Amino acid sequence: MTTRIDGDRLLGDLYTLRKMGEYKTGVHRPTYSPEDVQSRHWLAGRMAEAGLEPEIDGIGNVIGRARDDGTKLLLGSHVETQPHAGWLDGALGVIYGLEVARTLGGAIDVAAWADEEGHFGSFIGSRSFCGLLAEAEIDACRNRDGTTLREALAQAGFAGRQRAVVDPARYRGYLEAHIEQGAELEDTGKRIGIVTAIVGSHRFRIVFEGVQNHAGTTRMAVRKDAGVALVKLASAIYARFPDVAGPRTVWTTGRILLDPGAPSIVPGRAEMLFQFRDTDPALLAKLESELETLVAEATRGPCTVTITERGRSVPQVMDAGFQDALEHAAERHAPGLHVRMPSGAGHDAQVLAERMKSAMLFVPSIGGISHHYAENTEDADIVLGCQVFADAAAEILAG
Amino acid sequence: MTTRIDGDRLLGDLYTLRKMGEYKTGVHRPTYSPEDVQSRHWLAGRMAEAGLEPEIDGIGNVIGRARDDGTKLLLGSHVETQPHAGWLDGALGVIYGLEVARTLGGAIDVAAWADEEGHFGSFIGSRSFCGLLAEAEIDACRNRDGTTLREALAQAGFAGRQRAVVDPARYRGYLEAHIEQGAELEDTGKRIGIVTAIVGSHRFRIVFEGVQNHAGTTRMAVRKDAGVALVKLASAIYARFPDVAGPRTVWTTGRILLDPGAPSIVPGRAEMLFQFRDTDPALLAKLESELETLVAEATRGPCTVTITERGRSVPQVMDAGFQDALEHAAERHAPGLHVRMPSGAGHDAQVLAERMKSAMLFVPSIGGISHHYAENTEDADIVLGCQVFADAAAEILAG
Repeated sequence: MTTRIDGDRLLGDLYTLRKMGEYKTGVHRPTYSPEDVQSRHWLAGRMAEAGLEPEIDGIGNVIGRARDDGTKLLLGSHVETQPHAGWLDGALGVIYGLEVARTLGGAIDVAAWADEEGHFGSFIGSRSFCGLLAEAEIDACRNRDGTTLREALAQAGFAGRQRAVVDPARYRGYLEAHIEQGAELEDTGKRIGIVTAIVGSHRFRIVFEGVQNHAGTTRMAVRKDAGVALVKLASAIYARFPDVAGPRTVWTTGRILLDPGAPSIVPGRAEMLFQFRDTDPALLAKLESELETLVAEATRGPCTVTITERGRSVPQVMDAGFQDALEHAAERHAPGLHVRMPSGAGHDAQVLAERMKSAMLFVPSIGGISHHYAENTEDADIVLGCQVFADAAAEILAG
Repeated sequence: MTTRIDGDRLLGDLYTLRKMGEYKTGVHRPTYSPEDVQSRHWLAGRMAEAGLEPEIDGIGNVIGRARDDGTKLLLGSHVETQPHAGWLDGALGVIYGLEVARTLGGAIDVAAWADEEGHFGSFIGSRSFCGLLAEAEIDACRNRDGTTLREALAQAGFAGRQRAVVDPARYRGYLEAHIEQGAELEDTGKRIGIVTAIVGSHRFRIVFEGVQNHAGTTRMAVRKDAGVALVKLASAIYARFPDVAGPRTVWTTGRILLDPGAPSIVPGRAEMLFQFRDTDPALLAKLESELETLVAEATRGPCTVTITERGRSVPQVMDAGFQDALEHAAERHAPGLHVRMPSGAGHDAQVLAERMKSAMLFVPSIGGISHHYAENTEDADIVLGCQVFADAAAEILAG
């Protein structure tokens, strides 16, 4: 079952969207920024031109609904970007959805979920749609600049609107396409990735409190150096985690702060942001217990150590039938050049999977680069991916 | 030989100076800020009232010269402060000098050296006076905000003036009083510290270059995580240095930066500021060689490691005769309550020691606190310290 997508129309829309917040060869389009709001209105217009009924709801989700009767397939991703980041992260999946709706006609709904990139919170758009975002959480969200989510929604013109909530009976399921954001496809010469599961992540802030002191006049024996305590714990984590982790587990210390951070002052306070990810819930639990043990050991030093959870997501296994449909389509258009793989990055599909069957398709990232303006994918891979995506959608709808 | 200083006059001047840039219970008076310039003009006025001939030179040094013939003793310290820091760090030694000049009459010169606190460079005021600061270095200096030293001097009204340079034949030597900035005096119940030597410090920036990547999609095996490389080296330093160090050696990592510092991004670049201090040049050389070995080992990992020197100072032994004079005076006014000790902090005296006999006196810091607005010393200790300082100056001049 093949229906031909229009590669030029697809690329044309991606190029148009790229202009909104263009930065070097990438895009700077944070959630609810003027460029982001512009892109949502533009997308709603393109949905209307494609025969969909567009809505921008009270959280900024752009949803284009098919007018026909019968069950639908929901296709989506996000349009906002990380700061000074790439042009395809999110945008690709949304425009794939639009192109497939144009190609297959009346059984496709398309969505751009607000703030997948987490400027204000965690998956607030898709969680809102899935009934997993309380008003109280919206009250509490703010971005790095301190702007509250309420203020941003008001400024964007979305405040006071209803938030759209999923009717699971409407949908056969959810499909999302995305750039890989890693180099596994490129390294193995594949052109299509079929996602088996999306990792769960556990995210922590670990704070060390000691005593700030002069770095020349305070003897080593009496110091309570919060930076030393941090380095010792981080080092212990790096030493222990390989023994506990699985072959695909990843763990990262993305930020370290010493306070006050002056060369001649013994740091009185230090902070690290630490996270780990895996698709296996049992392994995640084991890693968390190991981390707790190491923190408990660290508290026996001269500094206090406090660990707080910054958030967690559960691993989501993708629907087996949807994976098969993606594989059939991939084998038709790129025989032998597809592979099943987990997603190490989080995606809206892991939220939608709470409410309906879900699956994801990956296209290669050149050099594995993402969250950087140099992020890119070959035009031929972009077009191929959309064709595979369309065929898989058609098979699922026919099934 | 005792000449009575005027404790109320001394404290009154310290209180007046404290008002210039007052911040909570401390002072915010960075070098060449309006408050700092105000304090230099005020000090010059007080010097004139004390019968000295005041000058503010082309680097901002305030020098009050005695009008009498004969060799002089030079007393000084600095008036600018660290950001939002204490009221006595520097100010104490300058006002001690002024008070001793008022008490002993015409054989005392008094100086406030510019920028001991290093807002623009390293000891630029005292080095300028000692002929150790080239015009090219002045051209290159700038503060944290990017303001150049030349701009700051112009704004302060000091540009275009001659820089005063020492005539070593004029002086018997240099004495500086300072708060201890540590808790050794307080912890041992002493009221006067007689400095035996000022530590030398070696200061480094160590930069790690890896590859920035997505923290979810980049497998551990292929990562070049600059933060991990940093933690490993810091950890190796903490493990090795105790075996090489002497009983008084101190070493500190005051700043760590991961770039870009986002929780879900593998850091592509990391940087640490590291320093160590000791009074023994042989030990400093041994520590540096150990550091070089550890850096060389670190370069065998997946990241590049580059170490650059940010500065160094050589240890300076204080003049034995001056130490004796301080001890005689201390024993007279605080029998049994004085101790000889090294200075772990750097001071202008280590620069002046390049040109003349030099020595230092410490008074206790309450709780060892300094470089913080809570910094303080008991009024009784401030007055006692100045009396000891005056007596020692008198003995040296009589000697």
